[in-house]
Amino acid sequence: MRATVMHGAGDVRIEDVPDATLIEPSDALVVVGRAGICGSDLWPYKSMEPSETGRRMGHEFIGVVDAAGADVRSVKAGNVVIAPFVWSDGTCVFCREGLHTSCLHGGRYGVDGVDGGQGEAVRVPQADGTLVAVAVDEDDSLMPSLLTLTDVMATGHHAALAANVGPGKTVAVVGDGAVGLCAVIAARRLGAEQIVILGRHPDRLAIAEEFGATDVVSERGDEAVERVRELTDGLGAHSALECVGLEEATVTALSIVRPGGAVGRVGVPQHESIPEGIATFFDNVTIAGGPAPARAYLEELLPDVLEGRIEPGRVFDRVSTLDDVPDGYRAMNDREAIKVMIEL
Amino acid sequence: MRATVMHGAGDVRIEDVPDATLIEPSDALVVVGRAGICGSDLWPYKSMEPSETGRRMGHEFIGVVDAAGADVRSVKAGNVVIAPFVWSDGTCVFCREGLHTSCLHGGRYGVDGVDGGQGEAVRVPQADGTLVAVAVDEDDSLMPSLLTLTDVMATGHHAALAANVGPGKTVAVVGDGAVGLCAVIAARRLGAEQIVILGRHPDRLAIAEEFGATDVVSERGDEAVERVRELTDGLGAHSALECVGLEEATVTALSIVRPGGAVGRVGVPQHESIPEGIATFFDNVTIAGGPAPARAYLEELLPDVLEGRIEPGRVFDRVSTLDDVPDGYRAMNDREAIKVMIEL
Repeated sequence: MRATVMHGAGDVRIEDVPDATLIEPSDALVVVGRAGICGSDLWPYKSMEPSETGRRMGHEFIGVVDAAGADVRSVKAGNVVIAPFVWSDGTCVFCREGLHTSCLHGGRYGVDGVDGGQGEAVRVPQADGTLVAVAVDEDDSLMPSLLTLTDVMATGHHAALAANVGPGKTVAVVGDGAVGLCAVIAARRLGAEQIVILGRHPDRLAIAEEFGATDVVSERGDEAVERVRELTDGLGAHSALECVGLEEATVTALSIVRPGGAVGRVGVPQHESIPEGIATFFDNVTIAGGPAPARAYLEELLPDVLEGRIEPGRVFDRVSTLDDVPDGYRAMNDREAIKVMIEL
Repeated sequence: MRATVMHGAGDVRIEDVPDATLIEPSDALVVVGRAGICGSDLWPYKSMEPSETGRRMGHEFIGVVDAAGADVRSVKAGNVVIAPFVWSDGTCVFCREGLHTSCLHGGRYGVDGVDGGQGEAVRVPQADGTLVAVAVDEDDSLMPSLLTLTDVMATGHHAALAANVGPGKTVAVVGDGAVGLCAVIAARRLGAEQIVILGRHPDRLAIAEEFGATDVVSERGDEAVERVRELTDGLGAHSALECVGLEEATVTALSIVRPGGAVGRVGVPQHESIPEGIATFFDNVTIAGGPAPARAYLEELLPDVLEGRIEPGRVFDRVSTLDDVPDGYRAMNDREAIKVMIEL
């Protein structure tokens, strides 16, 4: 079968790889219908050391079950399924607590003999704990939004929960990428009164406003902090949603949150420590977040997508064939595209 | 009047200072009955640059109102009052949210013309928002425990709340100082199932066990982390309460908390950043805490002290006159005393 393999920074190839097959009785074989390129895929795209064997890519996908192992009970051949961006058993202590990203028997796509999502098919381990079947056709117009539930929409929701977003709250979203835009949806959905988005791309900010952002701040650094303070009676935001992962964005998030507020971090951090521990301490600022347990949020978010109350699929502004995936990476890295959906 | 003034590291003096008097109509004049030396007073005791004028010390005190300004409604002359370790108006947006330490019109003792608590009397600004009258005699045996409500018991409670301690939870308390011991009381009070205390002073650990600690870990660094993991089914603690403030203790707290758990920081941090941001991120660990809004917690904690359900005053293992305060600092710094209560 064919799949996406990264061989180094800027070097993405579509290659023939061994066909995905069932190995364990708890596996399901999923023929990928649509997959996403994630902002986090751009980190290795910027920095990966050259590699002969390369690295299988992709962790956002949706498809149709082709075959299920003997132990699989919850999905069967023919089901359209959503695959959250990590696989998990659904039964361990962490899964039971809703933290599937820390599953004791779970793991990631593209490593340790598990296929990546940006390819023709994926062996999904722990299928019962991982996959969620949805009663839609493969070509349903909801597919882009359903695809966001594998990662970016769940991640935006996670940022909002981590930052204690709720009715009446003032929320600042740092970053206008796909996650930031989904964080706007999540904040509005949870009842935030004011949603300030910090970003510098007019096209993305326009979408943010359609999603529910009430204010836009396009300044950077100290000026951005100043603007957010002006917009929040000088106090700062109750909730700051860090949707980038760069140190500058983290500093901004920590600087615009008000005393007693919370920063929800979901951008994969590119730095070893959290800056400004002392100021954060004296202001009683909470720092929370991490990789989103997308599997845990599916039950809550799926009805809103199916019934059209939220439309996070709008973050996909480019569709690509599998062959064109290398150019999709380039386009996202060059900020030509917000997010690329691969149709197989 | 006489009061404690620090002139540099290790240089604590009892000096004649101007008498405390009412200045603003919202002030109350409190004759100090008992005051505490705080672990945080030891930071300048270790490191303060020499100063001719010196720095007035003390922020934990309890006493009797001598006079109240014309605007003061909630306390009057003769009342025994508890003074939380910051003063606050009780009416601003942060006070209304229970975060009196961030009061827009509040402040600290010992600076900006406000007396320190380790002296004969204190002008307390914003008396209505700050002081809480209690119906006990000045020589009541509950006085030591009431005094802890100004700071250390409130701080232990804050650590527990910040770390989401609750029924059935596994809690690790880092530090066996007065705050750590109070954190054990708080964790037990909030229903924790297992309370592991990390410390190395047998006398303090014995008190911790009487307060409700179920396990003691006296190893340090990696060995301490290993021990806590052994005690928690290899998972780590749901809640880690950082009651020291040194970087090593913060690293320990971050290392013993389980995925999805929370670190409640209340030790005044002696470092600029929070280490291990990436590991913390991937485990979805929440970092919360800061200075405790002791005023907010008085309503909740006071009945437990008055009715004898908790006895945090046991952390005071030495009583001092005002004249002997310099030796009290020395004794705490040398770890001869857990915590010193000054009787005036």
